[in-house]
Amino acid sequence: MKAYKEMTREELLQEKAAMEAKYQEIKAKGMKLDMSRGKPSKAQLDLSNGMMDVLNSSSDMVCEAGVDCRNYGIMDGIPEARRLLADMSEVPEKDIIIYGNSSLNVMFDTVARAMSMGVCGHTPWGRLEKVKFLCPVPGYDRHFGITEFFGIEMINVPLLPTGPDMDMVEKLVAEDPLIKGIWCVPKYSNPTGISYSDETVRRFARLKPAAPDFRIFWDNAYSIHHLYEDDQDVILEILTECAKAGTEDMVYKFISTSKVSFPGSGIAAMAASEANLADARKSLHYQTIGPDKLNQLRHVRFFKDMDGMHAHMRKHAEILRPKFEAVEKALSDGLGGLEIGTWTNPKGGYFISFDSLDGCAKQIVAKAKEAGLVLTGAGATFPYGKDPHDSNIRIAPSFPTLEELELAAELFVVCVKLVSAEMLLK
Amino acid sequence: MKAYKEMTREELLQEKAAMEAKYQEIKAKGMKLDMSRGKPSKAQLDLSNGMMDVLNSSSDMVCEAGVDCRNYGIMDGIPEARRLLADMSEVPEKDIIIYGNSSLNVMFDTVARAMSMGVCGHTPWGRLEKVKFLCPVPGYDRHFGITEFFGIEMINVPLLPTGPDMDMVEKLVAEDPLIKGIWCVPKYSNPTGISYSDETVRRFARLKPAAPDFRIFWDNAYSIHHLYEDDQDVILEILTECAKAGTEDMVYKFISTSKVSFPGSGIAAMAASEANLADARKSLHYQTIGPDKLNQLRHVRFFKDMDGMHAHMRKHAEILRPKFEAVEKALSDGLGGLEIGTWTNPKGGYFISFDSLDGCAKQIVAKAKEAGLVLTGAGATFPYGKDPHDSNIRIAPSFPTLEELELAAELFVVCVKLVSAEMLLK
Repeated sequence: MKAYKEMTREELLQEKAAMEAKYQEIKAKGMKLDMSRGKPSKAQLDLSNGMMDVLNSSSDMVCEAGVDCRNYGIMDGIPEARRLLADMSEVPEKDIIIYGNSSLNVMFDTVARAMSMGVCGHTPWGRLEKVKFLCPVPGYDRHFGITEFFGIEMINVPLLPTGPDMDMVEKLVAEDPLIKGIWCVPKYSNPTGISYSDETVRRFARLKPAAPDFRIFWDNAYSIHHLYEDDQDVILEILTECAKAGTEDMVYKFISTSKVSFPGSGIAAMAASEANLADARKSLHYQTIGPDKLNQLRHVRFFKDMDGMHAHMRKHAEILRPKFEAVEKALSDGLGGLEIGTWTNPKGGYFISFDSLDGCAKQIVAKAKEAGLVLTGAGATFPYGKDPHDSNIRIAPSFPTLEELELAAELFVVCVKLVSAEMLLK
Repeated sequence: MKAYKEMTREELLQEKAAMEAKYQEIKAKGMKLDMSRGKPSKAQLDLSNGMMDVLNSSSDMVCEAGVDCRNYGIMDGIPEARRLLADMSEVPEKDIIIYGNSSLNVMFDTVARAMSMGVCGHTPWGRLEKVKFLCPVPGYDRHFGITEFFGIEMINVPLLPTGPDMDMVEKLVAEDPLIKGIWCVPKYSNPTGISYSDETVRRFARLKPAAPDFRIFWDNAYSIHHLYEDDQDVILEILTECAKAGTEDMVYKFISTSKVSFPGSGIAAMAASEANLADARKSLHYQTIGPDKLNQLRHVRFFKDMDGMHAHMRKHAEILRPKFEAVEKALSDGLGGLEIGTWTNPKGGYFISFDSLDGCAKQIVAKAKEAGLVLTGAGATFPYGKDPHDSNIRIAPSFPTLEELELAAELFVVCVKLVSAEMLLK
């Protein structure tokens, strides 16, 4: 195909007319599809239905600690659940606390606690004149939502194929004691799908922040969410690297089974140093009577161990892989050589990240919506919803059926071509 | 029996010697019993085991809103769970939000939100020089723990048989704009078991606080937790009374199924005015991906409706009633006429409240502990753990078996007599 920018005005007008016709044709089909979030599909949910059977009225519901999971008691999680999620987090069992059904909530709580109580005895962030966070972009909108909610100033840091721009991260945290944190999705990053290089993880572990209460919010949301059996990303374990550098208090590591078992009915956890866990426990004691232990037991009885969890994730991959490949094929077939967009081909996670020509993303998303396809709002992958180039669009292929997805991808390609042609004709 | 204070020194010394012997005799039995918390017994937990069977791998897990409970979506709770807990809370379905597994956590969150974000647009409490709460005493230690955690100054208000001393409450909230809240357990109060009179509820609804962001934290923890079928406390519905007085924004009402189904694996809710719920939702959106909908569905499928829930609570009462009566009989048989203690005979809830002679509670609890019986710490029923008279002890009869409880009650009576005799001999 000829690149759009090399086309004559006449050719572009022709292309635009053709796409306009195709757009109307697809629109007439009355699509109604929400691809705005990384939601597992029904087929994926069905994979975990067995979890509804592992506990019944005659089950033994006493955990390894000898406590009846139906009653009060145990704040940190039952031993068998701590072990399973510690294995999933690649940390020792003692370094993890099991929380409720959402790691987002654990992250919110952790920021909230820092705001009101301070981190490990330091001044509460809420009493400081200003608090800043580094935000690798594009990134996860709900991370940025938490820091925006608490009035924390967010500073964009480019996310490179190797992870955040570490030259910039190192310089900023060393210079500015008001920078108290950074949001990271180190593996199969949301939305670009990249994984941090060993060098990036090591540089994180060796950061020398000006603020003693600076913390890395390491959201390992897609730690075992591979698409391919024979081509997987592996990242260094951050707490181990920190221990080598003597910086183990600098990291909060988050994990959950939301996209392993059931979103909203999973279990979440935080792994951290002894000092950081002790700091969290001081609040937890006042905050809750403890998370749902029966749901912890349900997860352990269903998955048994990491082998069980990996086997389960392979079934997810069987369902997800064709969907990612269908979108990638549609993009490649429809846009290859046109030079009006680039996209990622991730090896895991939940998203494909698309970059249009500057100034086109909002219009592409609007066009898709007009034809019945709801995408993640353009700008959502940036703090304050402001994409400086108006070019990034997050594509979430998991929820639709393959058939729906193929039509959605076709529509998306048409929208990109149409909006790009219009832009170039201006 | 002759009252201790009317005994001669000789008689008291005899009594003391007899009790000392009895104490050693019981101590020798090597009791090991924790009665410090209001924990349901194994027999009570067994009542809800059927909840483990209502969902299995072939169940339809789509809620009335058409949303698959296994997936993301729905922040406020599934419609059928909102209806059930709204009925339990005696409010319309629209006035309730379903939360996670602990109403304590909902209360903590509500105070945390007020601290960091303010209540309905008012100045965040955390930015004020000082914030105060009224604390009816004796009361629930975990309530006082939340306000202490946030550095909120707590002011004791006597809890009378009709509820908090409303003359004092009315005067204090009208005078002092720094008083932002009051903790209430309006029915079968923790620990005294009293329920607020109609007049008390009406006076609450008509409060004229100086602070526009004053809120009543109405923890209806024992709303359906009756001990007797034919002798139940009924209290006026506070939000209805507030609506009549035009003060519906003044109340947060909390409820949970912790002592209906499984502690720690129940569902909790907050009922409040439209403005207050909207205020809560603004945070919830950032805070969580929503509570566990499968557990909501489990509760609805198991209890079906309020008739089902009331029938279930009657089974709890069958188990609890003999325990309360055993303690009351032991106290009455052992201490009647001695004038060294008074206690409550509640018609519901989880506690019996005991008041010793001034200055004896700590020693009684210590004596019991020495013989293997852990009671709630003396002072726990007061803010900062400071009982000004050192007289109140909370007795939680639910957890032990009836046999264990009878021995525990016998030991308790002996400890009270021993410590009282020692006190009077000084």
